[in-house]
Amino acid sequence: MSRQRVRVCEVGLRDGLQSIATIVPTETKRRLLDGLVAAGLAEIEVGSFVPPRLLPQMADTPEVVAHALTKPGLTVTALVPNLKGAVLAFSAGVHKIVLPTSASWAHSLANVRKTPNEMIAVVGEIVALRAAMPGCTTRICVGISTAFGCTIQGDVDEAEVVRLAGAAIDAGADTVALADTVGYANPAQVRRLVRAVQDRVGEKLASCHFHDTRGLALANVLAALDCGIREFDGALGGLGGCPFAPGATGNVATEDLAFMLNAMGFETGIDVARLIELRSTVLAAALPDEKLWGAIHRAGLPKTYRAAGRKAA
Amino acid sequence: MSRQRVRVCEVGLRDGLQSIATIVPTETKRRLLDGLVAAGLAEIEVGSFVPPRLLPQMADTPEVVAHALTKPGLTVTALVPNLKGAVLAFSAGVHKIVLPTSASWAHSLANVRKTPNEMIAVVGEIVALRAAMPGCTTRICVGISTAFGCTIQGDVDEAEVVRLAGAAIDAGADTVALADTVGYANPAQVRRLVRAVQDRVGEKLASCHFHDTRGLALANVLAALDCGIREFDGALGGLGGCPFAPGATGNVATEDLAFMLNAMGFETGIDVARLIELRSTVLAAALPDEKLWGAIHRAGLPKTYRAAGRKAA
Repeated sequence: MSRQRVRVCEVGLRDGLQSIATIVPTETKRRLLDGLVAAGLAEIEVGSFVPPRLLPQMADTPEVVAHALTKPGLTVTALVPNLKGAVLAFSAGVHKIVLPTSASWAHSLANVRKTPNEMIAVVGEIVALRAAMPGCTTRICVGISTAFGCTIQGDVDEAEVVRLAGAAIDAGADTVALADTVGYANPAQVRRLVRAVQDRVGEKLASCHFHDTRGLALANVLAALDCGIREFDGALGGLGGCPFAPGATGNVATEDLAFMLNAMGFETGIDVARLIELRSTVLAAALPDEKLWGAIHRAGLPKTYRAAGRKAA
Repeated sequence: MSRQRVRVCEVGLRDGLQSIATIVPTETKRRLLDGLVAAGLAEIEVGSFVPPRLLPQMADTPEVVAHALTKPGLTVTALVPNLKGAVLAFSAGVHKIVLPTSASWAHSLANVRKTPNEMIAVVGEIVALRAAMPGCTTRICVGISTAFGCTIQGDVDEAEVVRLAGAAIDAGADTVALADTVGYANPAQVRRLVRAVQDRVGEKLASCHFHDTRGLALANVLAALDCGIREFDGALGGLGGCPFAPGATGNVATEDLAFMLNAMGFETGIDVARLIELRSTVLAAALPDEKLWGAIHRAGLPKTYRAAGRKAA
């Protein structure tokens, strides 16, 4: 019986490192990236094409992208907040960009100083830009942030999330992702919203991004898996958050996510033991003052674990 | 629409306190119990009828049971490892006893110095004892520990778990529970094993007990919920473990469990905010040297949380 494949995208180099005060040297980012690839990660969001004065942590994104593009088979992803970022990302040759569009108007205005509808207009411009750049094959994903609620606005209307997902696809985005930016989601809500968005855009809802702020990230992953989602973001050591969303600390730890998926029999290609080692030898060593999260690194892999999800030797 | 009820049983006073070196004074146990009842817990496993020389932490179980029995509506549960313990528990008037039966032969011999089959024979003796005690209505639950794997033995055959569950019911137990004593379970395994045991004993599989040793406890709860299980153990602050299972620290934190269930719209009767307060004001204060776990106490309840699971005012 062939195993179902689940894709894990490491976002720690972007969502993780942008949310902490420490500016990690480019060389450390390269070492992290090397380690992630060696552990089997097939996709890495390596940085963000934003003005360096806003996020100095991301100023070396072009160099990190260039290094990532030397890795055979790796999907190199970058976040872009606007058309200017897209020009840079397309020129740098990334395979995929993620354009964050907040479903919360309050969060959207605070985060990118645009309304969600203005962000959808930007999607259209970026799609047109790609069409105008000969040979550009970069995929465009719209990440719908605060899809499950917002620390500023509170409730986010599910119909608004569905509307934005549809509008993003109609504007020419290749895929959409749902992001629980502030760790408000619960599994019942995940199933309801994922199905509602699938009803509108089908398989173009490609991915989910969960934060573990309130401990429910892996349960939310399970809920989305049950709806057929086969791509999830994670950050090594559970780094991450959003500078505009107070208390929104902690992406789901990639090592925990990959452990759960592998243990369940999914094929992720990820060697969890190598991730745990990378976490301590490179990540924790580079960030001695940052709190890291996650569980599997403490107790280690079960005696019964058979690494079902690893690549065949 | 009426909400589905899920029962949460607090086991911290037993599984939590028996696994730590600190001996908590009886008065602190009473205060914890008062706080748990005030927060809406409907069932509490208050202690263990074991020889005090083996577990001095549990020596005051009769006093704690007596105090718990003063609480109207509370189901008072105690663990008993053998016939002698059952005599004491029945005499004390507890509403329910849990008899642990390890599905791992290696764990069973290490933990209670009996084989699983010898433990099933004990179940029969306890059932006969109850029948011989006029007016005794104490329910007998067999908790199948290491049901998802064992740190000593490794794999535990699922057919053996099913066989033991059936044998326990055939011996006259009212219910069985499945326990992931060492935190080895994953959601796919939970669904497979719960369904297999349900095929054998139906609704007499009443409850699941998950440890969060490797971060999967809430995902495992979700998996069991999907199979119709409506009763789960938790321990305030994630206390717990098994003295004979190295690394097996941490029941799922009751406050996180109740948060997830309430947020999903289940009716638990539990006020999560009060649990979080109890955790800091009584539990953490009483155990300054013990590491507590869990997530919701850090970030607090979401702005979008409507405490759907609380008792109607």
